[in-house]
Amino acid sequence: MSELRQDKTTREWVIIARERGKRPHDFISHLEKPCPTSTYISSCPFCPGQEELTPGEVLAYRDESDGDQKKWKVRVVPNKFPALSPGGSAARVYEDSFFLKADGVGAHEVIIETPIHNKVMALMTAEEVTEIWRAYWERYRALEKLEDIKLIIIFRNQGASAGTSLEHPHTQLVATPVWPSQVRRQFEVAMDHYDETGRCLYTDIMEFERKAEKRMITETDRFVVFHPFASRVPFETWIMPKDHHASFGAVSPSDLGSLASVVTEVLRKLYHGLNNPDFNYVIATAPVGDENKDYFLWHVRIIPRLTQMAGFELGSGIFINPAVPEETAQFMRDWRAG
Amino acid sequence: MSELRQDKTTREWVIIARERGKRPHDFISHLEKPCPTSTYISSCPFCPGQEELTPGEVLAYRDESDGDQKKWKVRVVPNKFPALSPGGSAARVYEDSFFLKADGVGAHEVIIETPIHNKVMALMTAEEVTEIWRAYWERYRALEKLEDIKLIIIFRNQGASAGTSLEHPHTQLVATPVWPSQVRRQFEVAMDHYDETGRCLYTDIMEFERKAEKRMITETDRFVVFHPFASRVPFETWIMPKDHHASFGAVSPSDLGSLASVVTEVLRKLYHGLNNPDFNYVIATAPVGDENKDYFLWHVRIIPRLTQMAGFELGSGIFINPAVPEETAQFMRDWRAG
Repeated sequence: MSELRQDKTTREWVIIARERGKRPHDFISHLEKPCPTSTYISSCPFCPGQEELTPGEVLAYRDESDGDQKKWKVRVVPNKFPALSPGGSAARVYEDSFFLKADGVGAHEVIIETPIHNKVMALMTAEEVTEIWRAYWERYRALEKLEDIKLIIIFRNQGASAGTSLEHPHTQLVATPVWPSQVRRQFEVAMDHYDETGRCLYTDIMEFERKAEKRMITETDRFVVFHPFASRVPFETWIMPKDHHASFGAVSPSDLGSLASVVTEVLRKLYHGLNNPDFNYVIATAPVGDENKDYFLWHVRIIPRLTQMAGFELGSGIFINPAVPEETAQFMRDWRAG
Repeated sequence: MSELRQDKTTREWVIIARERGKRPHDFISHLEKPCPTSTYISSCPFCPGQEELTPGEVLAYRDESDGDQKKWKVRVVPNKFPALSPGGSAARVYEDSFFLKADGVGAHEVIIETPIHNKVMALMTAEEVTEIWRAYWERYRALEKLEDIKLIIIFRNQGASAGTSLEHPHTQLVATPVWPSQVRRQFEVAMDHYDETGRCLYTDIMEFERKAEKRMITETDRFVVFHPFASRVPFETWIMPKDHHASFGAVSPSDLGSLASVVTEVLRKLYHGLNNPDFNYVIATAPVGDENKDYFLWHVRIIPRLTQMAGFELGSGIFINPAVPEETAQFMRDWRAG
C-alpha cells in the first residue's frame, strides 16, 4: 500500500504512491524533444544584436580584455512584461470596503544566461554556470536594499510544461512587497523546531540525510544534494549549503563555484538520465529583514516536471508522488557520464 | 501596473498582471484538439463490456425497467492503482526516529460518468450531469462513515494538462486520513472572520459578489456562480450554494439538479467560448466531523488549465494571473449558445 510522509519543513503530507508502480526508469522520456538547433535566432530578444528589444540592462558580464560592448556573457534586464514593477504604493487598500489589494510594486528581472540561443544549462561548463549564479547573487544583493521588498524569488523555468515562454536560456527574479503564506508557514515550522531543539531544522535534515545515505545524490565540501524524504514530485532535489546562512544574499561569493558544480552535476544527470526533462528550480531564501535568523537555511530546490498537478493537488495541497525517493536517488547516484 | 489582490479565504496574495496584457479572447485555443471520435473503444477499461478490467463496482445507476446488468448509466469503482486504500494503520510512526509517516490508509474511487467514451460533460444534458453529482453525493455519504477518514476530496481532471490519464469521462474521489494544511488554513481564516463578524466568510463573499455584479457569471434560486476577486488562474470559477452547509454531504439531494444545471452552463461556456480547454474541478468541503460548522460553506471550484504553474508559483505559492477576473467574467456572461 502507499505511504504518507510528512514534509518536516511544512508539516504537509505527501502520498508516496508505490501502488501506482512507477520505477525511476519509467520517467525516461522517449519523445524526441524539439530542441533548438540554431546558436542564434534573429527574432529572439535575448540573442546578441537584439539588445534594443529588451528594457535597458541592469547588469552584464563581459570579457574585460575585449572592448566590444556587444560581447556579453551574461546579461540582466527588467522583464518587458513585468508581474511586479517599481513605483506605485505597497500600501494595502480596500476595494469596495471589502477586498484587500495593493499596487503590484516590486521588481521582475530576467537573467539571460548565455549569448548562445541553444545552449542548455546541463551542458554548460561549471565556470559558465558560476557566472550565472554570480549574477543571481549580485542582483539579489542590489534588490534587497530597495524599499518595500519583502522577498526575492529567483527561479528558472525550463521547457513548456515548466512554464517557459522563451527558449533562449534564462532565469527570472521577482521581488515581492508581500510575504507569501507558504514561506511564512516554513518559518513558523522552523521556529517551532528551533524552540524545541535549539537547532536549525534544515541543518538537521541535511545532517540526517548525509548519515542515512539512501536519498543522497552527491556532496562537496560546501554543499549536500539529496532527494527529500517527502518529495512532492519524482526526482525533486534539494541542494543545501554546509555554511549556515538564512539568506542567499549572505552566501560567500567564493562558494558560488562549488554551488555551480553541484547544480551542473544534478542537471547533467537529469538531462542524460531522463532524456532532457522539463524542470523548474527555485532558490528558497529568508525574507528581507530575516537574513540573520539561525533557524532557517537558504537552499535550492529542483523540481522536474514529469507529472501534472491535477485536481487533487489543487484542491488539497497534498501531492501524490508516483515515485519513491530512495529509488530515484539510487537512479541518480548510479548514472555516470559515458 | 499590475495589482496585488488578497484571497480573503486564505489571505494569500495573487498578482493580477495586467501588464502581461492578456485579454479574455487570448485564451481561446486555436489548436485542433484531438478529441476521441469513437463512442466505444474495446481497450478502454471504462467502456461497457470491459467491466472486469476494473475492481468490483461499489455503486451503479441502471434503468430499473431494463433487466440488463450491463446497461449502466453511471458506475463507481475503486481505483485500480489507488493513491490511498482501506486497511493498514493511520497511526503516525517515526522513520529512523526522525521523519513522520503513516500507511496510505483511505479510499480512492473512480466515478465513470457515462458508458459513452467520447461524451464530453459540457455537452451532456443537465439530467445526465445530475446523475453524476448524485453518485458523488452518495459515495461521499458512504465514505464519511468510515474510520480514520478526515477529508473527502472529489475532483475531476479533464485533458492532458489537467492530469488525465484516461480520456473516458470520469471523476475521482480520494478520502484521506490526514487534514491538509491548505484546508486547515482556510478554516483558520474563516474562523477568524466568524469571530469578528459572527458571519460565514464564504456567504459574505457570495453576497458581496451578487451585489457587485462585475464578477458574476450566473445565478439560480439555489446557486451563485462568479469569478473570484483574487482568481489564481484565468477563468477560475466558484459555484456557491445559497443553502448553508459546511459539508457537501449535507446538501439536499433535491438541490443536485440545480447544481448540475449551473455546472453544465459554466462548462458549456468554457467549451464553446474557449474551444474546449483542459480544466479541473474540485468540491471544497468541510473535513469529516466539522459538518455542522457555521463558518464554512461547501462550494465548487472550476480551474481551467490555460496557463502553467512555473517556478515562481512553486517557490512562493503566489500565483501570477495574466487575466483580469472582471474581464473574464464579462466574457463568460456575454457568451450565449447559438
